[in-house]
Amino acid sequence: MVKFKTVRGMRDLLPDEARAMRYVEGVARDLAESYGYEEVITPVVESYELLSAKVGEEIRKRMYAFIDLGRRKVALRPEFTASIARLVVATLRNKPKPLRLFCIGSLYRYDEPQLGRYREFWQSNYELIGSKEPEADMEVLALTDELLRRLRIRGYQFKVGHVGILRGILEQEGIKEVEQNYVMQLLDKKDYVKALEFVKSLGVSERCVEALKGAFEARGDRPLDALKPFKALLKGYDAALLALDNLMDVLNLASESGLKLNVFVEAGFARGLEYYTGMIFEPFVPELNVALGGGGRYDRLIELFGGEPTPAVGVAHGIDRIVLAMRKQGILPMVKERLSVAVVPIDEGLKALAFKVASALREAGARVEVEILGRSVSRALQDADRRGLVYAVLIAPDELRSGEVVLRDMRKREQRTVKLEDLTKEVGLA
Amino acid sequence: MVKFKTVRGMRDLLPDEARAMRYVEGVARDLAESYGYEEVITPVVESYELLSAKVGEEIRKRMYAFIDLGRRKVALRPEFTASIARLVVATLRNKPKPLRLFCIGSLYRYDEPQLGRYREFWQSNYELIGSKEPEADMEVLALTDELLRRLRIRGYQFKVGHVGILRGILEQEGIKEVEQNYVMQLLDKKDYVKALEFVKSLGVSERCVEALKGAFEARGDRPLDALKPFKALLKGYDAALLALDNLMDVLNLASESGLKLNVFVEAGFARGLEYYTGMIFEPFVPELNVALGGGGRYDRLIELFGGEPTPAVGVAHGIDRIVLAMRKQGILPMVKERLSVAVVPIDEGLKALAFKVASALREAGARVEVEILGRSVSRALQDADRRGLVYAVLIAPDELRSGEVVLRDMRKREQRTVKLEDLTKEVGLA
Repeated sequence: MVKFKTVRGMRDLLPDEARAMRYVEGVARDLAESYGYEEVITPVVESYELLSAKVGEEIRKRMYAFIDLGRRKVALRPEFTASIARLVVATLRNKPKPLRLFCIGSLYRYDEPQLGRYREFWQSNYELIGSKEPEADMEVLALTDELLRRLRIRGYQFKVGHVGILRGILEQEGIKEVEQNYVMQLLDKKDYVKALEFVKSLGVSERCVEALKGAFEARGDRPLDALKPFKALLKGYDAALLALDNLMDVLNLASESGLKLNVFVEAGFARGLEYYTGMIFEPFVPELNVALGGGGRYDRLIELFGGEPTPAVGVAHGIDRIVLAMRKQGILPMVKERLSVAVVPIDEGLKALAFKVASALREAGARVEVEILGRSVSRALQDADRRGLVYAVLIAPDELRSGEVVLRDMRKREQRTVKLEDLTKEVGLA
Repeated sequence: MVKFKTVRGMRDLLPDEARAMRYVEGVARDLAESYGYEEVITPVVESYELLSAKVGEEIRKRMYAFIDLGRRKVALRPEFTASIARLVVATLRNKPKPLRLFCIGSLYRYDEPQLGRYREFWQSNYELIGSKEPEADMEVLALTDELLRRLRIRGYQFKVGHVGILRGILEQEGIKEVEQNYVMQLLDKKDYVKALEFVKSLGVSERCVEALKGAFEARGDRPLDALKPFKALLKGYDAALLALDNLMDVLNLASESGLKLNVFVEAGFARGLEYYTGMIFEPFVPELNVALGGGGRYDRLIELFGGEPTPAVGVAHGIDRIVLAMRKQGILPMVKERLSVAVVPIDEGLKALAFKVASALREAGARVEVEILGRSVSRALQDADRRGLVYAVLIAPDELRSGEVVLRDMRKREQRTVKLEDLTKEVGLA
């Protein structure tokens, strides 16, 4: 009887899934290197106060929070940016800007489990710290695009917006930050009706309501066409206008630089994280209805954590979602397997030699499994066959007397004796 | 003012440290492949009941345990073997044996922080499931030896013992498992005096006390010499004698197979984990007084978790300790860096082109940082110099008119104009 299971929402990745995960991880790390993002590793357990500061209500209430044995209130990180901002303030404050930092690892949220969503999940995360220029926003868009291209994912779009538009309008109407946050949470869930009702209940001007409605409608895959008519509604909302111009600068730069980003702009786009201050985006596969990550600009977080005012922009990619998308698109790469060999000593006294032979084959690059169950040759070969091994090497006293072993080609079901010293050559590895 | 710090005992790995970690991880994964161990990824959060079952009192009381939002008692894993045994019982029970499984990741124990010991730490872990033969014990010793050799660690020893010797003696004296566990905990801390006092207090025979004293003295780097005289003291303790013979079989096999393991045998050696039933070992660097991992045989854990009776043996390597040892021995490898290039557009209108140039250089294998602060050329070059970049590419309108850019060799402090289309060749990448 099975006594223990994984905790609900957690899961094991079996070899095929683990291989896919590690493949994406490798591509993400390689990308980081080619863009000059240096890897750091921050802890899974952080102070609750740090992690909850600007993460947004939705995630905050789903954090794995607890009291540790030293009576500290801690939590498992639900995202990376708070940890990176802490690191920048506490340890890297005197490093010249820009800083480009990469990290990758597991994150924890007590969400309702569903296909492709678990309570433990993995992200690769890139933070570009120290530039307020549109080039920086553009760079995180570009590297996300390149990651997805390198993985050969098809048909993805970039949903792009700018937090400064909506917040600019609301701010100018004198709406407090906590209420702004609530509006953003509603919009993150696409609950436009409830968001408008709430804003109206705060007694905002008719112009404000029109501007917000305009924002919700200003969307489409021809960004400049979608945004231009909306601009007229923002007259007098100076901060919102600046935000809109900034968004257009980023998108112009992207189109001029030959990136060919497939952009879907949404002036009313919001994300759950509260630290965003500027451009935000999500790479999205409409065909699969799945976001593969998300990112944006957060110019005030580092200052809030006690550092110098420091503009920053970053992106996180959901590795689980990416693997799922690749599986659905049938593009998970076949990993090139090493040549696989079973080594079977046919009597007790030959075990030690079997280890020596295995060692030499491994050194030449093979994957080698020594028979360790003491089974008969026929049982061992049957098992090697079932495992799909390519060769079996049988070590037997008779052949050994003339310095030979039996090499069996498992697929051709043929065997022949070969000189022990020629073995790596005979299997094609020397 | 720095507002947030890492939680006590947790730490950030900065780029140099992260690089070292990932290097060891890569070698460990490569080793797993060459021995046919398939990677699985199990969750950090598991049920408390699972993790605490056989982990031993010392670790149990230092686990990060808490109640999740669904009122489940959970904990952060303090070691991997319980999770792997759960996986084998729940998911892999019908897979043919032997199973060879590899995993790597972070673990959590509320230990007192000290040099090289943190509350979050990393291990690479190998489990060989389904064989009771000495070849299997030998295989985990061999792969540990090969890992340390591949990493070029010098002067390590294998401290080797066998849990069955002491437990065999105590069992035959009618000592209950919980009291045996207490004795093993004391021995794990090298508290031989207290262990003997405790055993005496249980009213054991004089012969038993002599056998235990003999076990504590049976130690040395010539295993057979150390164990032979001790064997006489075990007369009548049948299970202990079988255990001793098993240990000698493993050590004989190791020496015959040409492994040249540097073994230090200790008949009184104990480890904290309660699931061990047979041979146990620790790779150890005397010069640095540090254990680099630990492993052993656990033939009853899978059955205890509800599976068929299944012999198993495994090993975990402490990656943090290994990195520390490599640092102290001066053998952390220099990672071959990509060619690093700064791309600097010298006016606004050239930003988009800078991205295109960067993209082409990255495709050719370079690490490229685009100027994203809008700085003057001299400031940008100063910064590229400080970062140790090898080349800077200056994109300026005059040169561009004839299809050229300025390529500056940062180390020679020389610059010349080159054709844009020849750029990758000019930096030596085409």
